[in-house]
Amino acid sequence: MSSATDTDGPAESAETAAPDAPCTPAVPGARPRGRPRSAAVERAILDATLRLIADEGSVGALSIEAVAQAAGVGKATIYRRWPNKEALVIAAVEAAEHPIPELPGKSARDDLVLLLTALRTNLVDQRAGGLVSIVLTEVKRHPELWRRYHDVVIERRREAMREILRRGVASGELRDDLPIEVMKDLFSAPLLVRKMVHDTELPEGLPEQIVDAVLRGVAAPGPHS
Amino acid sequence: MSSATDTDGPAESAETAAPDAPCTPAVPGARPRGRPRSAAVERAILDATLRLIADEGSVGALSIEAVAQAAGVGKATIYRRWPNKEALVIAAVEAAEHPIPELPGKSARDDLVLLLTALRTNLVDQRAGGLVSIVLTEVKRHPELWRRYHDVVIERRREAMREILRRGVASGELRDDLPIEVMKDLFSAPLLVRKMVHDTELPEGLPEQIVDAVLRGVAAPGPHS
Repeated sequence: MSSATDTDGPAESAETAAPDAPCTPAVPGARPRGRPRSAAVERAILDATLRLIADEGSVGALSIEAVAQAAGVGKATIYRRWPNKEALVIAAVEAAEHPIPELPGKSARDDLVLLLTALRTNLVDQRAGGLVSIVLTEVKRHPELWRRYHDVVIERRREAMREILRRGVASGELRDDLPIEVMKDLFSAPLLVRKMVHDTELPEGLPEQIVDAVLRGVAAPGPHS
Repeated sequence: MSSATDTDGPAESAETAAPDAPCTPAVPGARPRGRPRSAAVERAILDATLRLIADEGSVGALSIEAVAQAAGVGKATIYRRWPNKEALVIAAVEAAEHPIPELPGKSARDDLVLLLTALRTNLVDQRAGGLVSIVLTEVKRHPELWRRYHDVVIERRREAMREILRRGVASGELRDDLPIEVMKDLFSAPLLVRKMVHDTELPEGLPEQIVDAVLRGVAAPGPHS
């Protein structure tokens, strides 16, 4: 979820300023921050990790050594931030995620379209989207990592969704007789399943189409409904 | 998808009657069929495969040798039916799937509830449901196998869903202005995501709740809708 100049990894708080990289790549245009060099190193490591995962189509073949080489840093620089390959992979996946958009909070319908549009962007993005299946196939095999990925990446998005729905129920825009947990999946699950299970296209208008179909219902108006 | 006494695997058609097993387990109560012994052997092999996968929680550690031992057959008996471990795993997963229920075809709503109830049964079933995550994490890494699993197991269920929706549109029960491919996922995706991504409970009444929510829509009636 971190942006280019805001890469505060988990290790950041536990270490002091870091002229510890044999080679610190320059980040042109990076805003000056508390530890610009450390942030740039972190960014280079995460980018290299993502690049290598994408090239291999797998986490299995990834090695800290290869990441160090690709990022132009020493292995110790990586291990100081992430204890092992798995932690590094999760951090890289988090960094590749598109941020959750600002939600105006005026209309549940409009906020839902915004949130699902962002989810779609994430899923179709070559980098973030390609990672989804890798995460599902490989990270899921490591319960601890999966829990972390779920808690951080997935749960953040779900909480934004719940918030929209709670507001919509409170404003009278949404029905109040359905559990939020059930309602939530009606909106987001179709996009996820399309990508993860069927790996089919996610056309640009799909988020809006799903939101309006779920809001309005798919029953034809008339004697049946 | 095969039931206990109807296990016609892919190899069945390519081989002749089969007194080929060093040890053919007895299947008490099995109906007499064309090749009862062969079907019983196949059943025993698939059951042993599923048992071993469940025990290990993984396909990785599975070996044809272990399956042969557990099923009480020779390795050649297995290889005669399935060319490799992967093909055997797919056949076992197919065999563990609950069959698609008979759909009366009178009401799209009722058929949808029936189909989703069967999907839920499949997902909560210790054996079939436990395999879902194994399939997603391991079978997905083998594109050819995944395609086969998708085409056979998943596609069969999707086609049943499309059929219900087409009938519902034709009868005027469902809206005719939404693509069937979009409508379809609105019903089935929430159950799948709950199980596969979040691994949360699937209460008994959930299929009905989802079907009615999607049919009726989640927008509150009134000025907003």
